[in-house]
Amino acid sequence: MSGDSFGRLFRLTTFGESHGRGLGGVVEGCPAGVPLSEEAIQEKLDKRKPGQPGGASTTRKEPDRVQLYSGVLEGATTGTAIGFLIENQDQRSRDYSKVKDVYRPGHADITYDAKYGVRDYRGGGRSSARETVSRVVGGAVAQAFLAGLGVSFRVFPVELGGVAAPAFSEADLASAQERPFFAPHPDAVEAWKERVAEVKKDGDSIGGVVQVEIHGMPTGLGEPVFDKLDARLAYALMGVGAVKGVEIGSGFAAARSLGSVNNDPLVPIGMEQSSNNAGGILGGISDGRPVVARVAVKPIPSIFKEQRTVNSSGEATTISMGGRHDVSAIPRIVPVLEAMASLVTADFVLLQRRMGGRP
Amino acid sequence: MSGDSFGRLFRLTTFGESHGRGLGGVVEGCPAGVPLSEEAIQEKLDKRKPGQPGGASTTRKEPDRVQLYSGVLEGATTGTAIGFLIENQDQRSRDYSKVKDVYRPGHADITYDAKYGVRDYRGGGRSSARETVSRVVGGAVAQAFLAGLGVSFRVFPVELGGVAAPAFSEADLASAQERPFFAPHPDAVEAWKERVAEVKKDGDSIGGVVQVEIHGMPTGLGEPVFDKLDARLAYALMGVGAVKGVEIGSGFAAARSLGSVNNDPLVPIGMEQSSNNAGGILGGISDGRPVVARVAVKPIPSIFKEQRTVNSSGEATTISMGGRHDVSAIPRIVPVLEAMASLVTADFVLLQRRMGGRP
Amino acid sequence: MSGDSFGRLFRLTTFGESHGRGLGGVVEGCPAGVPLSEEAIQEKLDKRKPGQPGGASTTRKEPDRVQLYSGVLEGATTGTAIGFLIENQDQRSRDYSKVKDVYRPGHADITYDAKYGVRDYRGGGRSSARETVSRVVGGAVAQAFLAGLGVSFRVFPVELGGVAAPAFSEADLASAQERPFFAPHPDAVEAWKERVAEVKKDGDSIGGVVQVEIHGMPTGLGEPVFDKLDARLAYALMGVGAVKGVEIGSGFAAARSLGSVNNDPLVPIGMEQSSNNAGGILGGISDGRPVVARVAVKPIPSIFKEQRTVNSSGEATTISMGGRHDVSAIPRIVPVLEAMASLVTADFVLLQRRMGGRP
Amino acid sequence: MSGDSFGRLFRLTTFGESHGRGLGGVVEGCPAGVPLSEEAIQEKLDKRKPGQPGGASTTRKEPDRVQLYSGVLEGATTGTAIGFLIENQDQRSRDYSKVKDVYRPGHADITYDAKYGVRDYRGGGRSSARETVSRVVGGAVAQAFLAGLGVSFRVFPVELGGVAAPAFSEADLASAQERPFFAPHPDAVEAWKERVAEVKKDGDSIGGVVQVEIHGMPTGLGEPVFDKLDARLAYALMGVGAVKGVEIGSGFAAARSLGSVNNDPLVPIGMEQSSNNAGGILGGISDGRPVVARVAVKPIPSIFKEQRTVNSSGEATTISMGGRHDVSAIPRIVPVLEAMASLVTADFVLLQRRMGGRP
Repeated sequence: MSGDSFGRLFRLTTFGESHGRGLGGVVEGCPAGVPLSEEAIQEKLDKRKPGQPGGASTTRKEPDRVQLYSGVLEGATTGTAIGFLIENQDQRSRDYSKVKDVYRPGHADITYDAKYGVRDYRGGGRSSARETVSRVVGGAVAQAFLAGLGVSFRVFPVELGGVAAPAFSEADLASAQERPFFAPHPDAVEAWKERVAEVKKDGDSIGGVVQVEIHGMPTGLGEPVFDKLDARLAYALMGVGAVKGVEIGSGFAAARSLGSVNNDPLVPIGMEQSSNNAGGILGGISDGRPVVARVAVKPIPSIFKEQRTVNSSGEATTISMGGRHDVSAIPRIVPVLEAMASLVTADFVLLQRRMGGRP
Repeated sequence: MSGDSFGRLFRLTTFGESHGRGLGGVVEGCPAGVPLSEEAIQEKLDKRKPGQPGGASTTRKEPDRVQLYSGVLEGATTGTAIGFLIENQDQRSRDYSKVKDVYRPGHADITYDAKYGVRDYRGGGRSSARETVSRVVGGAVAQAFLAGLGVSFRVFPVELGGVAAPAFSEADLASAQERPFFAPHPDAVEAWKERVAEVKKDGDSIGGVVQVEIHGMPTGLGEPVFDKLDARLAYALMGVGAVKGVEIGSGFAAARSLGSVNNDPLVPIGMEQSSNNAGGILGGISDGRPVVARVAVKPIPSIFKEQRTVNSSGEATTISMGGRHDVSAIPRIVPVLEAMASLVTADFVLLQRRMGGRP
Repeated sequence: MSGDSFGRLFRLTTFGESHGRGLGGVVEGCPAGVPLSEEAIQEKLDKRKPGQPGGASTTRKEPDRVQLYSGVLEGATTGTAIGFLIENQDQRSRDYSKVKDVYRPGHADITYDAKYGVRDYRGGGRSSARETVSRVVGGAVAQAFLAGLGVSFRVFPVELGGVAAPAFSEADLASAQERPFFAPHPDAVEAWKERVAEVKKDGDSIGGVVQVEIHGMPTGLGEPVFDKLDARLAYALMGVGAVKGVEIGSGFAAARSLGSVNNDPLVPIGMEQSSNNAGGILGGISDGRPVVARVAVKPIPSIFKEQRTVNSSGEATTISMGGRHDVSAIPRIVPVLEAMASLVTADFVLLQRRMGGRP
Repeated sequence: MSGDSFGRLFRLTTFGESHGRGLGGVVEGCPAGVPLSEEAIQEKLDKRKPGQPGGASTTRKEPDRVQLYSGVLEGATTGTAIGFLIENQDQRSRDYSKVKDVYRPGHADITYDAKYGVRDYRGGGRSSARETVSRVVGGAVAQAFLAGLGVSFRVFPVELGGVAAPAFSEADLASAQERPFFAPHPDAVEAWKERVAEVKKDGDSIGGVVQVEIHGMPTGLGEPVFDKLDARLAYALMGVGAVKGVEIGSGFAAARSLGSVNNDPLVPIGMEQSSNNAGGILGGISDGRPVVARVAVKPIPSIFKEQRTVNSSGEATTISMGGRHDVSAIPRIVPVLEAMASLVTADFVLLQRRMGGRP
């Protein structure tokens, strides 16, 4: 109820703040016998670390080592709760006087105060993007489970700061995870580096659009009416800080299309589908084609430029954010979105297992 | 878990199919003492009925009378479960031979078969848009509760079949609910009527974009991390059939903006906000400004034009949908989206009541 | 959250009051393909009707006909929500002036007023034992599902008004459901009839103890820590009105036993177990032996004898309940307890299906 | 779903095994502004530690130091997730060959294997009573919250190994928490010490009965039908390992009583209640009197005496448990039961806050 848990059968509960002792969580419902190691999880975490190539993220050092506390015996899950911990390395008391009484525009400072009557002024507390380390760990566990079922994920930006990636092929995508920004096309890398450099020079920030694909998706995932697969995906992805829009398949373009164009013809098994405007979901249930979503990421609200704001007494003032800040949530948001898609999928796979219908 | 329930504290559970005995549901968690009558609910239901002006919906007759079974005593809620029922008027056995073994493109026929190994071929069964009558009833109960808190909703299309409404003022909006299509500007009505007539002549269908606004929103609604207000709104709205995209505030446009432009400056109380790019939500929590979302609605998949498809044996065939079908889910989807926004808001209002912080 | 729903994957949500238009509910999560008819459900409902033999229940007429509204097609479940309704036959306005402002001792009148600030004075409203008709319907659906897995239930009183049934054999139990009171031994029938007649003459009421057995229970049902099988059973059974105690296996006798006596020795498969003190549950998980619980049922609080009480202004007064009241909740509570045990079992069966371990 | 979480609004999720790296959990939903320190929690944990006076618990050393990771700022809760950790001090690899392939009678060894196809043979893994440290921490947080509302708990054994405590007064109870066994009467201490010594000499174990009282309970807590206060209490208490029975108020004695005797007369405010057979709960909702429950605790299944059992191949064998084991779960179960009652109460307090009725 308090927003710290995600999922029903495959469930992640997290805790932790940017400047507390550490972050962590509990994964419930992962079946027994799934191979799982700290190393496999760490690999995912490392994709979220500061200092990603491309220049969009800070060079701040956060080692973010995950430690498994329970639920794993001799290299595989036991079926019981998996507890994990990531210690915060740097809890030194800094000088927060600049932000303690001033609300940062575009951040949750003012709303946390409205909600709780108190807020953790040290780097945003619970509202800090740092909470996403726990999502990545949970998602890595989900992926360990799903890998055994042949389900895989491809998540990559298609647009950064208004600059779209060139048209890309399957071959281009194969090496996307090795490129800076996880870019889907080699030519996007330089274009985006330039855009980042330009914005950084101005003390400003940018957003972008990220595509989320689920491959090897079993059919029949998703529940009627309120818990459609697309509804849960939208819930999962929109819940990541900085995300302001989610679309499935042809998305907003469908709103401008005709039924005769937007409907994907159904073809006999073995024949190639001509289109996937539905994004792999019909009536809220997976149809076996790749699930495709796109996510709008807003510019990072922390900028060097001076902004008008108010202090906690409600008086007008200005603020310009010092320190080291990312210029864009891309690419570090990529493994987080992947984690959320993984959690949704694992949850629906477990839900579907209980049904009496076709496998 | 099975997708028939929505909400946590203010919770709607529904049942019913297009061609069964009737539809209905249960509203749990509505506080005691809320004035509630069948008439007030019926008013909302009537906005969803076939035969809406503008020509986009069929003239099929579905009276859809709601009956309250429990939870109301002497004109007000008692705090206990509110059961309701809408009898189906027309359960005659029709000739379903045309669709019994053929999957309709863009519909859930093929995925329900994949999921359950059986499907109700009579008009889509549980996947029929007819299930939304129960959402409208639940939403009407939520609105009865919220009205007492000064929360109100404005939901209207801003685009139909690729034709955007002209720029509209607050004064224009005041009478939107009386216009065909619930159009936000008088000039949109004729333009949309023409678009509908054109498409209908071609045996095709169209979609559009609907704006959802919540006014009088209390601050502090929404929970950190996974249950942000925008995440639950996206979940609620994307779960309505035909919806393929949801954006909050500046949405996908934010992805192409700069931090210095997209951040809404905070201003002292009493001064007017210059922008609402955040759509009334910061860090997933309401900030007191109007909550604004936009929803992409795909074209109705049932069209008269012939389409390629497969039958339940997997063989290629074609289908063209006879009968009376809407040309667009707009405007009938409007009260459904309003209902979903109401349910989300009522749920968060109850959740927030338990907090120890500021009211 | 509001207490009208039970279960997680196999979930029953109910509504309705003793004097409203009717009662009903929704069963979510029943797998597709389970044979289900109104007749099979009605058979269970008839065991709960007033006028049960033995004299403990009133001769008031409540036909209680169940109507299925959805989720069933051609004699079997479709996997989607099963809605059902039981119309109240007799909603005539009676004279409630006697109880409108006086709190009945042992009833929920005073606590509903404290909770909601309002209460339905017409026969107890939502707190009336009449709500249990919906439990019986939900349980009947669960049993239809479980019957296909070889799971069955035996529920019968072992004590009534302080009079214990004689020691009974498996052969005696085979015909228990045909006897008045569902008595486990033929000799109990006369003894209990006499006890009932005696108490009725005094204008008083009695309780008893009911044994609940689940046979053919699969191993592995129940979840560690908080959701043990015995914990969920206790939750389900204690939630039935009039129940004041629940014990599993040797129960309170275990508290006076020795470990060497209370531990059930484990024996090789094929050998007969010498004892079942654990009641078929070890560490909260079913071990394949019959699950055995016993439930303490308090005397019906409505009695003809005069009792001291207060009115809604807090002043001392007296009350003696007229009308037709049962002398004991036994035997009518028997099918209700059976329904609750069925719901718990069906829920755990679905939960267990998702596990990766042994079947 | 996997049993590692308890509560709805005030929610505890735990992880950890007896021989893993540590145990811990997350408390969600605790309102902001509740004073909370590691010291206050530690005090509760210390009551659960081995080496309690009286001789019933081992002298094994487990310091069990709690560490708070999040959700607390400057001595008070922030309203966000409270993460906590208890490191296991002694994770040395021991010799488990004796129990690795032999199922211990009365333990969950055989059922975990049936459920998961694997089990943590090192001391029981997740099924070890060691998991209750996390319950005590969660309960201590709940009590910190409830203390501000004037709600307090009194939990004490009334029977040990068949030896009942003498009749005790309010004055006797005042110092119960300082006595060995938390005994409600000074004379019980010696009697129970003797009983323990006797049983220990025999290599056997004993159980007992524990009374749980909640004082200062607000009225109106509990929800109708399925989520009655007594139902959730039974669920909470029966879910503690070794508990085999729960009764409320007069409990099983009510089953042998008359309505005229068991009904508590209602008296005007200010007058003393003559009885509390209902245990402070009417219709599942608190009536403002003390809530009273009693719990049956079975003898510890680990005993030195030789027992018949089977190995994991299903062959007959014997086992006698070496090592240091408690003779009884009493008194160490006392703070665990107190924690569970606290969690239930905190959860219902938050639920009730949302209602529109009387405060």
